[in-house]
Amino acid sequence: MKENIADKLLECIDKKVNPCIVGLDPALEQIPEHLKKSKDRNSFETVRDVIIEFNKLIINAVEDIVPAVKIQTAFYEAYGSRGMEALEETIRYAKNKGLIVIEDAKRNDIGNTAKAYAEGHLGKVSLIDGTLKPSLDVDMITVNPYLGSDSIEPFIEACKEYEKGIFILAKTSNKSSREIQNKTTKKGKTIYETVAQYIDKAGKDMIGKRGYSAIGAVVGATYPREAKKLRKQMPNTIFLVPGYGAQGGKAKDITHCFNSDGYGAIISSSRGIIFAYKEEPYKSMFCPEEFYMASRKAAKDMSIDIIKNLEKQNKLPKGW
Amino acid sequence: MKENIADKLLECIDKKVNPCIVGLDPALEQIPEHLKKSKDRNSFETVRDVIIEFNKLIINAVEDIVPAVKIQTAFYEAYGSRGMEALEETIRYAKNKGLIVIEDAKRNDIGNTAKAYAEGHLGKVSLIDGTLKPSLDVDMITVNPYLGSDSIEPFIEACKEYEKGIFILAKTSNKSSREIQNKTTKKGKTIYETVAQYIDKAGKDMIGKRGYSAIGAVVGATYPREAKKLRKQMPNTIFLVPGYGAQGGKAKDITHCFNSDGYGAIISSSRGIIFAYKEEPYKSMFCPEEFYMASRKAAKDMSIDIIKNLEKQNKLPKGW
Repeated sequence: MKENIADKLLECIDKKVNPCIVGLDPALEQIPEHLKKSKDRNSFETVRDVIIEFNKLIINAVEDIVPAVKIQTAFYEAYGSRGMEALEETIRYAKNKGLIVIEDAKRNDIGNTAKAYAEGHLGKVSLIDGTLKPSLDVDMITVNPYLGSDSIEPFIEACKEYEKGIFILAKTSNKSSREIQNKTTKKGKTIYETVAQYIDKAGKDMIGKRGYSAIGAVVGATYPREAKKLRKQMPNTIFLVPGYGAQGGKAKDITHCFNSDGYGAIISSSRGIIFAYKEEPYKSMFCPEEFYMASRKAAKDMSIDIIKNLEKQNKLPKGW
Repeated sequence: MKENIADKLLECIDKKVNPCIVGLDPALEQIPEHLKKSKDRNSFETVRDVIIEFNKLIINAVEDIVPAVKIQTAFYEAYGSRGMEALEETIRYAKNKGLIVIEDAKRNDIGNTAKAYAEGHLGKVSLIDGTLKPSLDVDMITVNPYLGSDSIEPFIEACKEYEKGIFILAKTSNKSSREIQNKTTKKGKTIYETVAQYIDKAGKDMIGKRGYSAIGAVVGATYPREAKKLRKQMPNTIFLVPGYGAQGGKAKDITHCFNSDGYGAIISSSRGIIFAYKEEPYKSMFCPEEFYMASRKAAKDMSIDIIKNLEKQNKLPKGW
């Protein structure tokens, strides 16, 4: 069996002894004021520079704690090409630190267009003279399944060719996710279970040395009952689990997302970590200029919380 | 009743006497060779410049024929920040020509993140000093419904605030679209009908002077039976109809997407128009250096084809 991106991810998880990752969602209004003291406070270039500086300080503060970062594309793309420069620089910086980079872009489209997304984000793009060059070059990306399997296949092809991975949205963490995802078909299966069945099947020939596939699933921390079912349905699938903390997901519920071997899930928190300096108990412990130290502490606390609950359920990986 | 983006779109359709639009999907390998004679054939900057030149020539050739262009974000985004510069320049250029600009980005996410997408693409973004500035600033954008209504609301808010519009994916033109979209729930309704019901309801308080809402639907030209049903279900909704030509959608089927007043649909073709110079009959009529003339002719032919079929079904708008 060939090593795949899931093996690399598990290796990073073991190295850091931590299945928790940090979401880089740099909402401008939440970034500490002292980073915004630029002279040119009215340009997209300054926004780019502020986001890059903020992200680098966060990455420096957590690089030895977390195995991966999840970059939420919307907060960069909102600022057009200058925002994309911040995205590119953040990706480069995080990869240089040895972190796995997951782009939460929730992309999808059909045929040629899906191929363009897959090549641009995961693979290589063709230049004028035909040279192939990596473009955004993240390790993994989130993919929306509404258009069906032919829209996902170009991403899977890119995963195979470039040893990358995807996380397909199965059951998302928001309240309205039930409106489509929990609809039950005539055959008694929900839409999210239909998607899970596809993920499990498509992942079967992409399983790495440690038993996990390069095709993951997004499963919200806020739906423990669904997570339990999905865990059984997709034994070889890594779950990307958003919704811890700010969105209300609790560690004791989240542990359902792990297999009995203690692997199979990465838990993501964004606001709760990167803007920890604004909330208690971190607000009393660190001044805004030490925001990254608050993030470091919050990332550690989250890891302890998850690991403690894994231990309670006898799911701690061997050797941790 | 206030004028909305649907009114503006219908005005453009009447002015051009044409419900057909051109999709700007500048797949690099299909762009004519004479536009690629740059010295620097190995950089992302050259790709940007070639895409911009290609698009401008196409826009110049069709600006008096079509009411709108549909820009497929993937082909730009694949080249990162330099690609986004091409997207921005194309948007600006098309808007300056008085064309309605529809961004086919199929975006979506939850809460704050959906808001970031909505503000970045349709509305205004906040800079460091709190100034609000438009960023990508397209007129309308396509939105994926898999995450449910709370993920679509931030886009609807942006539509209200900035007089913009969205097209929500209902039934897409690809083969696998049935896998999720055609699943029938216990209540006997398909997923695409569930989405249609939401589109109809959410659009009711956003109807403009001419009876059409700012919330449109994507309905593939390749599924005439579904289109017929959806037309009845969403009387005030404009359909964005991809799939004509290259994907196999025929004009006589597509006319089901129009209401009896002759409005309610815009038909999009991308490859069939912008790369018409590569296919017969245009290949024999124009040399590659006249590729934009081939596109002009193809756009005219498409319009004639659709209008002829509207006429056959007694659906020609008054005064056309």
